[in-house]
Amino acid sequence: MQTEMQDLQTLTAAANAAAGPAAAATDAVRASWLVAVADALDANAAELVALADSETRLGIPRLTGEVARTTAQLRLFARVITEGSYLEAVIDHANADATPPSPDLRRILRPVGPVAVFSASNFPFAFSVAGGDTASALAVGCPVIVKAHSGHLELSKRTAEIVSQALSVAGAPEGLFALVVGREAGTALVQDPLIKAVGFTGSIPGGRALFDLAVSRPEPIPFYGELGSLNPVVITAGALAARSSDLATGLAGSFTMGAGQFCTKPGLVFVPAGTTFGAELATASADKGTAPMLTDRIAAAYPKGLEGLAGQPNVKVLSGTTAQDAEADGASAVVFSTTAANVIERPEQLLEECFGPTTLLIEYGSQPELAEALALVPGSLTATVHAEDGEDVAALVEQLSGLAGRVLFGGWPTGVAVNWAQQHGGPYPATTSLFTSVGATAVRRFQRPVAFQDAPESLLPDALREDNPLGIPRRVDGVLQLG
Amino acid sequence: MQTEMQDLQTLTAAANAAAGPAAAATDAVRASWLVAVADALDANAAELVALADSETRLGIPRLTGEVARTTAQLRLFARVITEGSYLEAVIDHANADATPPSPDLRRILRPVGPVAVFSASNFPFAFSVAGGDTASALAVGCPVIVKAHSGHLELSKRTAEIVSQALSVAGAPEGLFALVVGREAGTALVQDPLIKAVGFTGSIPGGRALFDLAVSRPEPIPFYGELGSLNPVVITAGALAARSSDLATGLAGSFTMGAGQFCTKPGLVFVPAGTTFGAELATASADKGTAPMLTDRIAAAYPKGLEGLAGQPNVKVLSGTTAQDAEADGASAVVFSTTAANVIERPEQLLEECFGPTTLLIEYGSQPELAEALALVPGSLTATVHAEDGEDVAALVEQLSGLAGRVLFGGWPTGVAVNWAQQHGGPYPATTSLFTSVGATAVRRFQRPVAFQDAPESLLPDALREDNPLGIPRRVDGVLQLG
Repeated sequence: MQTEMQDLQTLTAAANAAAGPAAAATDAVRASWLVAVADALDANAAELVALADSETRLGIPRLTGEVARTTAQLRLFARVITEGSYLEAVIDHANADATPPSPDLRRILRPVGPVAVFSASNFPFAFSVAGGDTASALAVGCPVIVKAHSGHLELSKRTAEIVSQALSVAGAPEGLFALVVGREAGTALVQDPLIKAVGFTGSIPGGRALFDLAVSRPEPIPFYGELGSLNPVVITAGALAARSSDLATGLAGSFTMGAGQFCTKPGLVFVPAGTTFGAELATASADKGTAPMLTDRIAAAYPKGLEGLAGQPNVKVLSGTTAQDAEADGASAVVFSTTAANVIERPEQLLEECFGPTTLLIEYGSQPELAEALALVPGSLTATVHAEDGEDVAALVEQLSGLAGRVLFGGWPTGVAVNWAQQHGGPYPATTSLFTSVGATAVRRFQRPVAFQDAPESLLPDALREDNPLGIPRRVDGVLQLG
Repeated sequence: MQTEMQDLQTLTAAANAAAGPAAAATDAVRASWLVAVADALDANAAELVALADSETRLGIPRLTGEVARTTAQLRLFARVITEGSYLEAVIDHANADATPPSPDLRRILRPVGPVAVFSASNFPFAFSVAGGDTASALAVGCPVIVKAHSGHLELSKRTAEIVSQALSVAGAPEGLFALVVGREAGTALVQDPLIKAVGFTGSIPGGRALFDLAVSRPEPIPFYGELGSLNPVVITAGALAARSSDLATGLAGSFTMGAGQFCTKPGLVFVPAGTTFGAELATASADKGTAPMLTDRIAAAYPKGLEGLAGQPNVKVLSGTTAQDAEADGASAVVFSTTAANVIERPEQLLEECFGPTTLLIEYGSQPELAEALALVPGSLTATVHAEDGEDVAALVEQLSGLAGRVLFGGWPTGVAVNWAQQHGGPYPATTSLFTSVGATAVRRFQRPVAFQDAPESLLPDALREDNPLGIPRRVDGVLQLG
C-alpha cells in the first residue's frame, strides 16, 4: 500500500492549516493533548502490544515496558512545556543611555511548522508513531506527519487511529497529526515545501539519503537524523582485575539484549591485551540462545555483516558462528576479537556497525595505542568506561566526550532514561545535528527564535508580557529569574 | 594573494590542537581572552578605522561606532560565559524507584571544535575578523579560522595581527585563531575534516554554494549562514493618517543608511493604495545625494539590480534613476512602486534583494490582498509594522512572526542591538539555521551536548559537580535553580 501523492498534499496542507491554531494554543492546552494521547495509548496497551509482538517479535514484556516508556515520555513533555523554560523567554528593556540607545527587545521560541517524522524499526512505540519525535514536535505546537515503518505497519495504523482520536476528543485542531505509508510518500514528505523539519531514526544509508534531500531543497530544512552508532566501551586493566567475570556477564547481556537491535548496543569493546576476558565473554555469550530479529530483511543482513567482519585479516571468532538463519526467527550471539593495531590499519573495514547480537573485542597494548584506535571511531551515541578508583582516566574521558553524546561510567549503554538531562545524539553519523532526540531538550529541534522590538503589551505573547502572567522562568535585563 | 593549501592544513591542524586546551580553559580565563582582544582593538581603533575607511569608504563616524560595537560585543560574550547559563547544565539524580531505575545523569554543552568564519563586506568590524561569529565561537572554546573578505583585506590582516597578539599575551593556546585569504582557501576550509562548523554572512548565491559544500561532506557540519533579507515593512491606513510625513522621512533615512548596504535594509514597504505616501517618500529620498558603495563589484551590481526591477511590468520609478555610477563612489537613492496584485502575479521577479539605497513600495487594496502578497515574501531577518493604537493588527503580527526573526513596532530595522534578547536570523534565505548570529544566544551554534552517566565526582566538569562550585544556574531534578 502506498499513500497517493495527491493525498499527501492534502495532508501537508491540513498540517499547515493546523500550525497556526497549534502555535496559538496555550502550553496548558497542548499539555492536555499530550496527556490525552498518553491515556489513550495506556488504555489500549494490551491490544497494541499484541499487535506489535505479531509484527516485531520483540516479546510481550519488552513491548509492554516500551508502551509505558512512551506514555511517560508524552507526560514528560507535557511537564516540560508547562514549566515554560523551553520558551527561552528573554526581555531586554529599552535603554536610552546606551550608545546607541537600545530598544525594548523580547525574544521567545516559536514552533517551526509542520514536521515529518520517520519511525524506527526497533522501537515500535518509543521511536515510532507516538514516539519521542512526535511528542516533542506536538509539545511545542508543530503539526506532525509520520512516515510509518514497514516493519510494523498494522501497529502504526492502529496507533495512528488511537492518537488521532485522542487528539480530536481533546479538541486539538484537525490536521495536527497524520500517518503516511510507503517509501515514495516519505521521500515526497521531505521535499514538500510545507514541511519545515524532519525527525528520523534509522540506518546510515537511508538517513543520509533523506538528509541529502532535506538540505538540497530550494529552502533547506533541518534534518534531525539518528543514524548509527558503534558505542565503544573501554575496559581498563584495573577494572578487569577487579571484576572481569561481572564485566563479561554484563556485556553479554547488553550486546545481545533485544537481539542486538538497539542503537546503543556496545559494538566495540576495548580491553587490555593478554587477558582471559575474551574467553570469559565467549562463555557468557554462549548460552544466550537464539532470538528473533525484527524483519526478514534485518535477519538477512546480519550474517552478511558477520561474514564481512570474519573475512578481515586478524579477526577471530571467539564465540558463535557467522552461519546464521537468514530469516527473522533465529539470530545468535557472535563475539569477534582483533587488535587495536589491526583497527589502526583498517579502520573502515573494522569500524562498521553490524545490527544484531554481535560485538568486537579490541585488544590494546598501551594507552597511546588505545587513544590512536579510539580516534578512528566514528561519532557515537554513547561511550562507556569501566575503570577503578585510582586509575587516571581523565584523558580517556575527555577523548570519549569528544566522540559521543553520552559517557557512561561502570554501566552499559543499552537503556536510555527519558528525563531532563538525557542526551541521545552525538557527532555524525550518530546524529546529523547538535541536539538530542530523547529527553526534555529534544523540543528545541522544532523551535526557532523570534524577537519583538518595542511591541505594545497587547501584541506580545503571554510569555513576554511585563508582569509574567504565565509565571515562567525568564531572563530580564541579563538576569535569570525563576517563575 | 592566496593562502596555500599546505598552509591551510597546518592552520587547521593547529586549530585542532588548540581545541582541547580552549575547551579545558575555565570560563573566567576564556572571558579574559575576549576582553584582551576587545582592549587591543580599542587601543588601536584610530589606526583600524582609518584603514577600514580607505578600503570600504564607510566613513570615520560609522566605522568608529562599529569598532565600539564590536568590542562591546566581545565584552558581552565574556559576561555571557561567566554567567554560566550558556552551559545548560542539567542534573538528574539517580532514582532507584523509577521503572526502570534511572541512573545519575548530568548534561552540559561543550564546544564543537574548530570553526570557520566567513567575513561580510558591509561590516568590516562587527561581522568580520573579530566580529560576532568569531567572538561567540571563541567564547565557548572553539578555535576560529577566519576567511578574510576581499573588500577589506588590509584591514583584515591588521585586525588579525592585533587579535593574535592579544590572545598570545593573554595566554591563549597557540592555534586558537588564524586568518586565511582567497576564495580557494575558503572552499577548502569548509571541506576540511578538522573544521566542525561554519559561520557565514554574505550573499545568497555565495552562501548557498558553501552551505552545499558543508552538508555534502562525508561528515556534514552545521553551516550558520546569514544570506539575504528583504525586511518587509507594513504601514497601516491609521499610521499613514497619523504621521505619513514622519514615516516618509524615517523610511528614507533607513533604506539609504550606509548606502543601503545593511542586511536589515527595508527593501519592501507595503502601504495602502490610493495615498500620497509615494510622493512623500520620493521627496524625502530625493535629497539624499550620492554615497559610495563598498566595492566596485557591489557598485556595478547596483544598477543591474535596479534595471532588472525597472524592466518588470507595472513597476514605476518614483524617485531617482536606474542609470547609476557603476563604480564604487556614487550610488543614489531609487524608490520604486508597484501593486500587491503585481507582486502576487510575479513574486520571483519582484521579491529579489537589491543591495543598495533602493526600496520597493507595494500598494495593497485590502487586508486579504496584503496577507496574500506577504505570504510570498521569502524568510527575512526583520519585519516591521507601523500601526496606530486601536487598529487590529494581531493577525498581521502573527503572519510577520512567521516570516521573520525580529518583528518591530513603529521603528526601522536598520540598527541591531547586541544584547541577550536579540534575534538576528530568520527563515531561509535570511539564515540557514534556527539560531541568531547576533546577541548572547549566538554561542549555542558552536556547542553540542554531552551527558555523563554515573560519573565519579572527580571526573565531572566543574559545572556539573554536586556542590556547584561555579555558582551557575542549573536544572536539578527538573527544577531550575539560580546560581
